[in-house]
Amino acid sequence: MSKLRVESFTISLDGFGAGPDQDLNHPLGVGGTALHGWAFSTRTFQKKLFDSDSGQSGIDDDFAARGFQNVGAWILGRNMFGPIRGPWPDESWRGWWGNNPVYHVPVFVLTHHARPPLVMEGGTTFYFVTEGTAVALERAREAAKGKDVRLGGGVNVIQQYLRQRLIDEMHIAIAPVLLGAGERLFDGVNLPELGYACTQHVATSQATHIVLSKQ
Amino acid sequence: MSKLRVESFTISLDGFGAGPDQDLNHPLGVGGTALHGWAFSTRTFQKKLFDSDSGQSGIDDDFAARGFQNVGAWILGRNMFGPIRGPWPDESWRGWWGNNPVYHVPVFVLTHHARPPLVMEGGTTFYFVTEGTAVALERAREAAKGKDVRLGGGVNVIQQYLRQRLIDEMHIAIAPVLLGAGERLFDGVNLPELGYACTQHVATSQATHIVLSKQ
Repeated sequence: MSKLRVESFTISLDGFGAGPDQDLNHPLGVGGTALHGWAFSTRTFQKKLFDSDSGQSGIDDDFAARGFQNVGAWILGRNMFGPIRGPWPDESWRGWWGNNPVYHVPVFVLTHHARPPLVMEGGTTFYFVTEGTAVALERAREAAKGKDVRLGGGVNVIQQYLRQRLIDEMHIAIAPVLLGAGERLFDGVNLPELGYACTQHVATSQATHIVLSKQ
Repeated sequence: MSKLRVESFTISLDGFGAGPDQDLNHPLGVGGTALHGWAFSTRTFQKKLFDSDSGQSGIDDDFAARGFQNVGAWILGRNMFGPIRGPWPDESWRGWWGNNPVYHVPVFVLTHHARPPLVMEGGTTFYFVTEGTAVALERAREAAKGKDVRLGGGVNVIQQYLRQRLIDEMHIAIAPVLLGAGERLFDGVNLPELGYACTQHVATSQATHIVLSKQ
């Protein structure tokens, strides 16, 4: 059965999944880049994001790599796709990732504002879904053709899927960083009550990796 | 200079410092005992709490042990002293720890309800402070005679001292446990804004240990 998975989603010690005040210069919010030190150091991210062979292998990389295994489609909240809020002024914004994004599969972007699909190089097509989380998941599962669907975030979208118990597995990295403000991943989400438990727990010098699984 | 330190304070993956619904049978709130697995396994806690030689040494124990070094007095919130709320019905409640509590130094209990000091065996005296956090700290510092003051908790009391920037150092353990509800340690506390940074980060199979220091 195709799973809905969150992978390599990083939170700070004080529980925030992104810094405050996201904009064009701060795609991860102010201070958000420091969260992802563990990920940027890995072979997987260096290769995927920068086509570089410079990253490290090891536990951090193992977690980064598993996030790309058996993924047939992605779902992203609109704020992960870009900094623009409200109606699309035009179609010039094509994501943060250049002409050949890291996904290489269909990506379903949740938004309140319709927009035609955006075909990119390398197999990525962004589809804009205005009918909500359930429809996005349905379409993503269909597009994934039996593979899993990876939910990229952000915090609000993950919370919506968690409250519906639709997420099967979440790999969360806790980075040794304080953000102080932003969106707290587990605010208003009672994980044990929703049936989630911590099924894996491994730490490195750069992050504590946990896997939460639906029981 | 005598420091105010939080030591071995454990939070869950979802950020809670104790489970909900503390009572006589659940001194740490429902589910709260699971938080402290790392601590109960250490030589230090086995010795201090149960006078047993059965605990483990290693990183977890190093953190447990440092919490008792150079401590001349403690401050506790009233809920850490016992499950009774409101005025003291009588003086029969003498803490969770039997006749010879683990402290062996003066302990200042924050409460809204006056009560005479309680002299226990082994050097522990509980003083009940009704004049608030600043007076408790002043009295604890005086009693500590140049040694540090350890702040035991709970969450609300730690938050009050954090907001006043009175805590110098906090060792927090993050346990691989989900609580779902309770009191969240970092709710409404913007640590970077208050001048705190993560200065140490070490993990074991049982907990991620972090030290937050005032800069």
